[in-house]
Amino acid sequence: MSTIGKPVDRVDAVAKVTGRAHYTDDFYRPGMLTAKYFRSNIAHGKVKKLDISKARDLAGVEAIFTYSDVPQIKIATAGHPYSMDPAHADVADKLLLTSDIHHLGDEIAVVVAENELIAEEALELIEVEYEEFPALTTAEKALAMDAVPIHGGASNVVGEHQFECGGSLEDSLQKADLVYEDSYQTNMVQHLHIENHTAFAYMDDLKHIVIVSSTQIPHIARRVVGQALDIPWGGVRVIKPYIGGGFGNKQDVVLEPMVAFLTAKLDGRPVRISLTREECMLCTRNRHPMNLEVRLAAKSDGTLLARQMEVISLTGGYASHGHSIVAAAGSKSCLLYPRMAIGYHARTVYTNIPVGGAMRAYGSPQIIFALESAAEDTARSLKIDSVDFRIKNAAREGDVNPFNKKPISSCGLVECLEKGRKLIRWDEKRPAYINQNQGNERRGLGVACFSYGTGTYPVCVEIAGARIILNQDASVHVQTGATEIGQGSDTTVAQMTAETIGIPVEDVHIVSTQDTDVTPFDTGSYASRQAYVVGNAVFKAATELKQKILDFAEVLTGFPADELSIVKDNIVHPKSGKAVISLKDLALNSYYDKDRGGQLTADVSHKTTTNAPSFGCTFVDITVDIALCKVFINEIYNIHDSGVILNPVMARGQVEGGVAMAIGAALSEQVLIDEKTGWVHNNNMLDYKVPTFTDIPDIQSDFVETIEPTAAYGNKSLGEPPIISPPPAIRNAILDATGVAVNELPMTPQVLYRCFKDQGLID
Amino acid sequence: MSTIGKPVDRVDAVAKVTGRAHYTDDFYRPGMLTAKYFRSNIAHGKVKKLDISKARDLAGVEAIFTYSDVPQIKIATAGHPYSMDPAHADVADKLLLTSDIHHLGDEIAVVVAENELIAEEALELIEVEYEEFPALTTAEKALAMDAVPIHGGASNVVGEHQFECGGSLEDSLQKADLVYEDSYQTNMVQHLHIENHTAFAYMDDLKHIVIVSSTQIPHIARRVVGQALDIPWGGVRVIKPYIGGGFGNKQDVVLEPMVAFLTAKLDGRPVRISLTREECMLCTRNRHPMNLEVRLAAKSDGTLLARQMEVISLTGGYASHGHSIVAAAGSKSCLLYPRMAIGYHARTVYTNIPVGGAMRAYGSPQIIFALESAAEDTARSLKIDSVDFRIKNAAREGDVNPFNKKPISSCGLVECLEKGRKLIRWDEKRPAYINQNQGNERRGLGVACFSYGTGTYPVCVEIAGARIILNQDASVHVQTGATEIGQGSDTTVAQMTAETIGIPVEDVHIVSTQDTDVTPFDTGSYASRQAYVVGNAVFKAATELKQKILDFAEVLTGFPADELSIVKDNIVHPKSGKAVISLKDLALNSYYDKDRGGQLTADVSHKTTTNAPSFGCTFVDITVDIALCKVFINEIYNIHDSGVILNPVMARGQVEGGVAMAIGAALSEQVLIDEKTGWVHNNNMLDYKVPTFTDIPDIQSDFVETIEPTAAYGNKSLGEPPIISPPPAIRNAILDATGVAVNELPMTPQVLYRCFKDQGLID
Repeated sequence: MSTIGKPVDRVDAVAKVTGRAHYTDDFYRPGMLTAKYFRSNIAHGKVKKLDISKARDLAGVEAIFTYSDVPQIKIATAGHPYSMDPAHADVADKLLLTSDIHHLGDEIAVVVAENELIAEEALELIEVEYEEFPALTTAEKALAMDAVPIHGGASNVVGEHQFECGGSLEDSLQKADLVYEDSYQTNMVQHLHIENHTAFAYMDDLKHIVIVSSTQIPHIARRVVGQALDIPWGGVRVIKPYIGGGFGNKQDVVLEPMVAFLTAKLDGRPVRISLTREECMLCTRNRHPMNLEVRLAAKSDGTLLARQMEVISLTGGYASHGHSIVAAAGSKSCLLYPRMAIGYHARTVYTNIPVGGAMRAYGSPQIIFALESAAEDTARSLKIDSVDFRIKNAAREGDVNPFNKKPISSCGLVECLEKGRKLIRWDEKRPAYINQNQGNERRGLGVACFSYGTGTYPVCVEIAGARIILNQDASVHVQTGATEIGQGSDTTVAQMTAETIGIPVEDVHIVSTQDTDVTPFDTGSYASRQAYVVGNAVFKAATELKQKILDFAEVLTGFPADELSIVKDNIVHPKSGKAVISLKDLALNSYYDKDRGGQLTADVSHKTTTNAPSFGCTFVDITVDIALCKVFINEIYNIHDSGVILNPVMARGQVEGGVAMAIGAALSEQVLIDEKTGWVHNNNMLDYKVPTFTDIPDIQSDFVETIEPTAAYGNKSLGEPPIISPPPAIRNAILDATGVAVNELPMTPQVLYRCFKDQGLID
Repeated sequence: MSTIGKPVDRVDAVAKVTGRAHYTDDFYRPGMLTAKYFRSNIAHGKVKKLDISKARDLAGVEAIFTYSDVPQIKIATAGHPYSMDPAHADVADKLLLTSDIHHLGDEIAVVVAENELIAEEALELIEVEYEEFPALTTAEKALAMDAVPIHGGASNVVGEHQFECGGSLEDSLQKADLVYEDSYQTNMVQHLHIENHTAFAYMDDLKHIVIVSSTQIPHIARRVVGQALDIPWGGVRVIKPYIGGGFGNKQDVVLEPMVAFLTAKLDGRPVRISLTREECMLCTRNRHPMNLEVRLAAKSDGTLLARQMEVISLTGGYASHGHSIVAAAGSKSCLLYPRMAIGYHARTVYTNIPVGGAMRAYGSPQIIFALESAAEDTARSLKIDSVDFRIKNAAREGDVNPFNKKPISSCGLVECLEKGRKLIRWDEKRPAYINQNQGNERRGLGVACFSYGTGTYPVCVEIAGARIILNQDASVHVQTGATEIGQGSDTTVAQMTAETIGIPVEDVHIVSTQDTDVTPFDTGSYASRQAYVVGNAVFKAATELKQKILDFAEVLTGFPADELSIVKDNIVHPKSGKAVISLKDLALNSYYDKDRGGQLTADVSHKTTTNAPSFGCTFVDITVDIALCKVFINEIYNIHDSGVILNPVMARGQVEGGVAMAIGAALSEQVLIDEKTGWVHNNNMLDYKVPTFTDIPDIQSDFVETIEPTAAYGNKSLGEPPIISPPPAIRNAILDATGVAVNELPMTPQVLYRCFKDQGLID
């Protein structure tokens, strides 16, 4: 391939490093107003009294709206496609403003003012009285018999499901030589995208609402705004400029309905809401903390026979993505060790904590942390090398996904493990470390694997569009609904287009901004679907355009289209090896020949009805300082089977970013919630311990390139996967170094201190 | 038809009347710089010395560029499609900045500053010395043997052509009972669009230049910028927001190459140029003044046998549209009285006066003024009623266009004349007025006809694109390259789309802004081509989308697509009279059925290979105050055959605007040029006498609806035609009232005074 697989420069590199790329907050409309939420400072209860009179009288305050003023329509904020099956619809539990308080920071009223300072001053003038309820901050409290159902109904269970696959669980458990059981807890972490949530809206004609938003899902936001305000969806226009990160947190429709509501109420005037970092951490979405119990059954030779999991996922005060995160992660995990019986039971539970939502890898980090911790302990119990144990059980090409009975279409997991073992010099270091581990500084090796999917099919519809135009100068413009959210999708789309048409990648221009009025429909950036689902759409469009070009070449030159091809700047007749017409002359003719041709474009919409499994593993070499209760990462390798690597430089960037994020989640990050009140102690970047540049080690990545047959370019997911396996690998390395199994995240010095003390390593 | 022909409200009415519609100057980019031209204050010569040092040192001046700094590439500014035939290419005679001065205000340098005030201050600090040449301000001077060729070469003739058609001119002249000859002069008038020329440009990635401009021709501007800067055309993006009028003056590429040059030179910073009214009147384009000689040969019964015209058109300091205006007008006039021999010889001549360019009706007002004045005088010489004379000679269906030998596909000119005659009560008033016309106040009736084309085929390529998307809510979004320039094309496109698909017009959303990166290619708004050429493209796209909808209905319902149709909100099976599925359910399924369908769109490009003749006439009833030398219009009727009237309210609006503009051109407007120096005396709206609201009478319009077979909706040109026939009708009414033939425009009191005095009406 001429462009795919090459380290093509990011198409947005210059715009971004020179600061010229325009983000939502860089746009301004004359007369733009600022809105700010008045938020609850309790986590559970009811507003008894609200007095906005003083705030309303403040000069510069344009309007104040409270829970009494908004449409009494509950919406689902999850960035999922609309479902034709009502049973599969997202949980609609959110009013634009509410007097029922579900978590700290819940939205009671909104102040619209000339500027931010006045808006903030007005917020201070609002007087509120609450009736306070006990804060249900844990699974135990929320699931207690006498717990108040936070959203009414019978209980706090948002969703529950269970499945069994891959054979009889009971039989398999009985056949096992060893049944290992343990329980695990994972942390609430925050996405911490650099750009907070921000959006503004206006109406020019008092009919159409235009929303400019930092969103991963413009087309879905359009629909949800229509639903929230009960207006025709076609009258809503969502524009997504460059975006400063999302990681799933902008796969929720957080601000768009409110700015739309405000401009509609204020005669079309432009109104902006930009959340502060503190609001963003408290009142957008987080990674669900989960309680997990695992049971693994194995034969003495290390063959896994059965696996059972019981999971409770805490979604906080609103359903957001509802039960789908723990459900999706459960089914995707079946791919990892597919030759065993699997039982899975999971519940998602409302609590009075910040809302859980989509975050990079969508539940898999939690599930895989538990699974790969248990796998490690099982291997150790059986005295089998951790890598050997995984290789024995790992998915291979030819296996069948036990969950959906479909064959695993490509798999390089064993090769990933072999590669990682070599890179980290596993076989050489392991015996050496065991002998050294007596003093304060102890070294350990860890490994963990993951499996993941690519896209959401068949759970959700996978639809993506692409439109390509042949320009007058023989370059092309490409529009896709895939949103560039920093992951590099604009660049890979450019590479795919160039590859399939046969032109240099420099001749591909990308329309980066999505505008739902004109951008081909796509459900958005999530589920690591872009390069796969959108890739298939781009392939279809580029193939169609190429055919139109060759057909027109036949009209112009008389050579049969099926004997022609495009090579760089020319239409070539391979038999004779000659260029029959330059692509530029052909393009000019298509536009300007008075009677023949026309602008050549391809405008396609594609439903992908496949999903591709991706795999990989982390190898880590650490030093644990027992006295400091601190982990130092000496080496860390992520090895991925993501099918064909489209752009090696960007692929490494994805891996490095994901691993860095995973290290934070493993060792330091956690949203700290007061168990009694639901208060959040660290909704800011000073107190929330995200690793800085100096905390992150040199991250190594490598790839095992399989060719995924269902992808036009052989590729599979890579955006989310790198974040999944580092935490259990680090946990396993701590175990290796110290003999202590840390079964909770994050593994902070405080946690290690407790565990080391429990195990007698420190006094 | 359910929507075509209905008085649908303008889709942009609310946005415009509430002031919310965003025009080019309403957009702002942070750090935007202002640029202003340093212009010559002589009309002809050379810059001998230019000193910008003082200006450059002024604080707040970012840069100054002179004629030495710009690419030495001459461009053609005419908004014509690129021509595949080099012989047909426009005259490229314009550098971005020049040391050769061709007219007053020619562009020598450009100052870029933090703001307009500093830029203006800097202009005052630039020192210049000229070598001055005699200003060639008239045809006589420019064509004199010893005239300096303004652009070098052999002479000042930009273009010259002649043709003979419809039989032998010589034979016909010999057979005639009467040969009438006279000469006429028309005035230079200005478009006076409310919004002056304005544009800004910026680069985000230092690769693509984005230009936001008030232009009628975004796709052409893109190409010309590419040519002017010698950069790939695909790297240029032109965005056209709402525009405050153009009337042809924004069918020239005036500012775009310069703002593009400036941002490229200034590291991508945004740079704006907004012309002042004075600059706009002096240095954009005007209607060419013409000198015309006409010879008409007729039989005594009024049958016209031959017509000969000799025209000189003054283009000013640059070619702009070159010779094409007087050429196009000459050929379009052949349609009016097609059953005679026609000879036409025209020259376009460089002079040192402001530049001539496209203006509403593109030369036809000048040609028709001469033709219809001569026709009137011929009828009077033969003592034949003016209306009868015209009816006798007027084009009729079945006639052949003598110029291109093609049958006249639809014609209602005779019916227009009959209708106008009735409306103004011609037969009743004419004898009455003749008897009354002795005192100071004299009444007269006048009539004049016109013929016109629709679009430019076969002279230029007629290509237009349309893209229609079926939204999730069963509404549609439409994109066309046709630019809404106030004429209402967005609204007629909405009507056409609704009509063809079969949905209510309220369900059609228009993407009004053109953006050359994503908007279907179209050459722009000119030649009254929109509703015809773009209409044919919209019909094609809407038909294609409808077919896709019905095909998908077949998939969903099992009813054969060819038995289904769309009626409002439903897919209907006419045989059974039942709705088989609602359009909304179908739309939702197209998006969200997991395995079937996809976003339904149609993205078409269409080359129209026809042209449609349109016709009409003006009837006017005036009072002339002999002493005041002033004309008062009592009644004025414009009757048009524009085929099917798409929207009667907007059609009347077009006619009223055109007639008002024509009255200005007839009675008061003229750019006054000092014959000796080329100085312009009235480049402002105080001294240039455009009629105000109080000067314009109640304008009446009516239509004879023919059905044009080459138009998808039966329609023909209407945007330009209303401006053509009022001036000769008024001239003919003055003749009727006073017996004085005024053969020049404008017919100001000063001119009438001279004519009345010559004829002895006043002392």
